[in-house]
Amino acid sequence: MPATDEEPPAQAGPAAGSRRRVSRRALLTAGGLAVTAGGGAATAAALRGGDGTGASALIPFHGRQQAGILTPRQQYVRLAAFDFGARADRGRAAALLLRWTSAAEHLVRGEAVPPELEPPGSRAAETGALAGTAPARLTLTFGLGPTFFDRTGLTAARPEALAPLPAFGEDQLDAARSDGDLLVQIGADDAFVAAHVLRALQRLARGEAKLRWTMTGFTAADGRRNLMGQVDGTNNPDPAKALVTAPDAPAWLTGGSYVVIRRIRMLLDHWDTLPPTHREQALGRRTADGAPLTGGSERTPVDLNAARADGVPVIATNAHIRLAAPASNNGATMVRRSWSYHDGLRADGTPDAGLLFLAWQPDPRTGFIPVQQRLSRGDALTRYLVHETSALFAVPGGIRPGGYVAQALMEG
Amino acid sequence: MPATDEEPPAQAGPAAGSRRRVSRRALLTAGGLAVTAGGGAATAAALRGGDGTGASALIPFHGRQQAGILTPRQQYVRLAAFDFGARADRGRAAALLLRWTSAAEHLVRGEAVPPELEPPGSRAAETGALAGTAPARLTLTFGLGPTFFDRTGLTAARPEALAPLPAFGEDQLDAARSDGDLLVQIGADDAFVAAHVLRALQRLARGEAKLRWTMTGFTAADGRRNLMGQVDGTNNPDPAKALVTAPDAPAWLTGGSYVVIRRIRMLLDHWDTLPPTHREQALGRRTADGAPLTGGSERTPVDLNAARADGVPVIATNAHIRLAAPASNNGATMVRRSWSYHDGLRADGTPDAGLLFLAWQPDPRTGFIPVQQRLSRGDALTRYLVHETSALFAVPGGIRPGGYVAQALMEG
Repeated sequence: MPATDEEPPAQAGPAAGSRRRVSRRALLTAGGLAVTAGGGAATAAALRGGDGTGASALIPFHGRQQAGILTPRQQYVRLAAFDFGARADRGRAAALLLRWTSAAEHLVRGEAVPPELEPPGSRAAETGALAGTAPARLTLTFGLGPTFFDRTGLTAARPEALAPLPAFGEDQLDAARSDGDLLVQIGADDAFVAAHVLRALQRLARGEAKLRWTMTGFTAADGRRNLMGQVDGTNNPDPAKALVTAPDAPAWLTGGSYVVIRRIRMLLDHWDTLPPTHREQALGRRTADGAPLTGGSERTPVDLNAARADGVPVIATNAHIRLAAPASNNGATMVRRSWSYHDGLRADGTPDAGLLFLAWQPDPRTGFIPVQQRLSRGDALTRYLVHETSALFAVPGGIRPGGYVAQALMEG
Repeated sequence: MPATDEEPPAQAGPAAGSRRRVSRRALLTAGGLAVTAGGGAATAAALRGGDGTGASALIPFHGRQQAGILTPRQQYVRLAAFDFGARADRGRAAALLLRWTSAAEHLVRGEAVPPELEPPGSRAAETGALAGTAPARLTLTFGLGPTFFDRTGLTAARPEALAPLPAFGEDQLDAARSDGDLLVQIGADDAFVAAHVLRALQRLARGEAKLRWTMTGFTAADGRRNLMGQVDGTNNPDPAKALVTAPDAPAWLTGGSYVVIRRIRMLLDHWDTLPPTHREQALGRRTADGAPLTGGSERTPVDLNAARADGVPVIATNAHIRLAAPASNNGATMVRRSWSYHDGLRADGTPDAGLLFLAWQPDPRTGFIPVQQRLSRGDALTRYLVHETSALFAVPGGIRPGGYVAQALMEG
């Protein structure tokens, strides 16, 4: 047994956890975990029994990138941010990430969380309550917020790109539902599975991290229309090509990216009374089929230079697709993977509904930030939208069998 | 053309609308509607293209009972209660019910709401935004609250069974999210479709009725487990046999029933720390497979008289299945068709999660009310549950092609 495997468990307290390398064996011992390699093979075997859709369909957990980013969108998402407790340090954080990772390997296969992963005092493993949950194309995607690094004694390791987002002109942010030390995106084709998984992650984090906020979203069966009736995400770049790790990113981000999360409420009662031409001009596309107002079909490239006979641009100077276009933003590209939400009525009787906007990119400084700054200065859609929450997370690369999320960072 | 078809449109104001028979033609003229018979044939044709599941699957809208009661549960539900505005009367209410019914016939087929159904000033019909919505096993089920009758000048027609529910000992009700003049239960296998349909119904009700509250719920893929981990609904009676109209019910309720809706929050953080044996004794069933503690499998009848060697009953005297059993309640039966909900975090950090409990029955006075009174007096589960909202609606019988919901009441 190598000497590093004999290191004692990480001690509580920032100093002990943050100053030295954390060994995998120490984590396993500390957490009482019995993680074995070979989860990948089990997943492959289970996948052979799946049919690609429906409750029995599986998404492999392991891979070069975390699942849930390039994965075709599921019908349902539950986003959850966690904050560490007072005892957080590097060793405890690594143990939590390992525990979550190990649980996730089972949950995506529709299996119960193994009892040995449960924290001391947990009763959940003593019943078979989790046994029957369907895989339902479940994915768990983990991210690290800017505050993760200070809380775990890894301040020096925080990438420059992972700075808190700047304020944007029209922000009306709810701090309690923004930011967070840790992100988990739970995607599934089954809302019950997503709720169940959130409960499991909370239970596994007991004493280490608490749920800060959670939000739910959904997609249409065709996955493309939002609650404003627009065909959404038309100009998305090829995700596999766009999510190339930035050259100056740390090694632990290889295969990873950054995700910006904005809860954008739509003023639907207002929007629904607008003349259709006004709506289409604000976006720059036809509502019926998503084609740009310069003609063609949905996939036809927009001609930002087209003008009517009287010289007025066909795509208005403040149209959303003009201001958001890569051509207007030094080629900035983001992979948008958004969900609709509708949480009922607000106190004023208007709908608490809109878009959980998720943008994935190699670097927010050349992605979301400049684009949103440009939109803030005059996007025609802005008056019908309220940005209510905001968060940025670094999303480490994919997880190999036997490893855990952010392992290269935590043990680097 | 028969003389009754020549009656002028119903006038605004309670007196004009409530005193005389409302003719169908008057409603059509008043609403500018062009409802044609034959919707049933169209549905049948569309059904032939469906495969029973998935986004393209249809549930027939017409039938002896309204869809969404005997229909196998969809993955997702959106409950919505509406209140009439100041101008409500019998004629206006009938026109709204006709407009909603006509729209529903199209929506369940995945079609847009026809422009002629839109209220004056609506812009929604001018775009193709609704065209692509999937059927996704959509059902719309309409109900009438106790206040419906006073608001529409039909006070004398209110069934005695449709009195406001009595207070129960442990109620902690939020009045703003309880009751309502009108209910719509929107069930679908697609959360986007349900949200979209709610927006359509709100738009169609503009000037007549406003959304009072809305709640969303979901089922697991296997449809049986709730967030406490229990197998739910085991002892449900055969719905088709249990939902027989009570002998003293008014004719317009033939084929209909009463639905009680209770939003029951679960104290999950407490529940999850309980010893499994405590949980199982509180319910009276094994968590793993739902079998009664007196043995067998899930469907084995419980033996309420079984006792251990020391004389202690196997099913505790305060076990939920003992107190809720028909044998303990003069044979009272309810068809339970509940959904789970999880709306995030409450201000105190506990989960805003639990069960949207729906009980369908021929008469609440012999169904929900006595059972809940019994549970209030000592059900072992009660300490882990908070009843937060409450509502009762009469649900008229099924709708025939060319008719509309509650037509026999409105034109009786």
